[in-house]
Amino acid sequence: MAELICGKQAIREALRAGRRVRRVLVADSARETAALRDVLLLADQRGVPIQTVERAELDRLADHHQGIAAEVDPYVYTDFAELLRAARADTPPLYLILDSLQDPQNFGTLLRTAAAIGATGVVLPEHHAVGVTPGVRRASAGAVEHLRVARVTNLVRALEQLKAAGVWVVGLDAHATEPYDAVDARGPTAVVVGSEEQGLRRLVRECCDFLVALPMEPVLDSLNAAVAGSVVLYEYYRQRRRPR
Amino acid sequence: MAELICGKQAIREALRAGRRVRRVLVADSARETAALRDVLLLADQRGVPIQTVERAELDRLADHHQGIAAEVDPYVYTDFAELLRAARADTPPLYLILDSLQDPQNFGTLLRTAAAIGATGVVLPEHHAVGVTPGVRRASAGAVEHLRVARVTNLVRALEQLKAAGVWVVGLDAHATEPYDAVDARGPTAVVVGSEEQGLRRLVRECCDFLVALPMEPVLDSLNAAVAGSVVLYEYYRQRRRPR
Repeated sequence: MAELICGKQAIREALRAGRRVRRVLVADSARETAALRDVLLLADQRGVPIQTVERAELDRLADHHQGIAAEVDPYVYTDFAELLRAARADTPPLYLILDSLQDPQNFGTLLRTAAAIGATGVVLPEHHAVGVTPGVRRASAGAVEHLRVARVTNLVRALEQLKAAGVWVVGLDAHATEPYDAVDARGPTAVVVGSEEQGLRRLVRECCDFLVALPMEPVLDSLNAAVAGSVVLYEYYRQRRRPR
Repeated sequence: MAELICGKQAIREALRAGRRVRRVLVADSARETAALRDVLLLADQRGVPIQTVERAELDRLADHHQGIAAEVDPYVYTDFAELLRAARADTPPLYLILDSLQDPQNFGTLLRTAAAIGATGVVLPEHHAVGVTPGVRRASAGAVEHLRVARVTNLVRALEQLKAAGVWVVGLDAHATEPYDAVDARGPTAVVVGSEEQGLRRLVRECCDFLVALPMEPVLDSLNAAVAGSVVLYEYYRQRRRPR
């Protein structure tokens, strides 16, 4: 069954990443910007049919569509086994593990950061978490199209497998006493981010090699989950860019 | 004129920060969670009237209200002159300057990060930018109540005044060649973040002492504006937490 993704950036990245796009719908009244022309040119190059429709029809199909939508196959997940193999690669892997994230906007934002730092892959539980829906693909500004995302039935088991493959598992926990930047993340590392309300589930937390927190001023007690995860990912990316 | 803010966290922080709250409205069917009880207790301690209303009435007044809303005075801005005086304080100030940010969600997220790192203050242009609306107060999870935010008619002039007071102005610019972490931000510093689509306006960009970018893998060309700003703020906060 086809899904509908909207937004110029999300559609452009799906095309660029070679995801299967069945057709592109453009509103007859869409403003001819450079960004729109780029997307249409790319669709044409990939042999994707482009169809002009009345804006009212797009309005009926989707909110905030920016005058363009694309019928795409549902997001294709990667096998966890494939991500696990990358643990032994020459370049130390950096995984993002999402435990029970519920908010599609936060999920999309974190995926965009993960793609920016070249994360090896993203792992989520099949249950208790939002999947890569059209809204998430949009919220990631298309970045998820360039990422490998695996869903697993048992997140704790997946973490154990990563650990057995030599990956250090670092969980974000608002109550941890160790600051996130005290960890040397230049070796194989997995960063685990929990849900906005509850943080990490107990068994997941207990499975982590380290628990770290973002230091903050006493007036506040938490950060946006996507920001917290992004700050940690960027710090570990920063460590890797610097000579030992 | 009173405004309506929703969400338990936003209301709790408005009360904690001593902002003027006229009354609290609770849906008769609101689930009695610990978080809700905390807010109501705090309102009671501050002498704020609490009124039970039908859920349908709250639904009519606001979306996603979580069963609670508060009538508050519009957000009280700080004079820029007060923020400027802080430039000469013993602790080197760290300002966040927002040029033309349009998205209330991104704005709220950045304010939350600014509060977390104890930013000296936030400066925005009176025009060309979203102000601290009830939606932004909510999106910041109430963090903005603990922040000093100034609006100025001329952002470039404000930056010049900060520079004259010894503050280094660091602009985020996706095209910059200098990485954000190459700057020593332990002295008086202002971080300037531009709009999601356009980045910094030309005159604002030209006014910066440094232009920096977040390094990223070639597959992507930009990050969420709130994430980019938050990563930079946290890096400079991190530098300040470490001994020279």
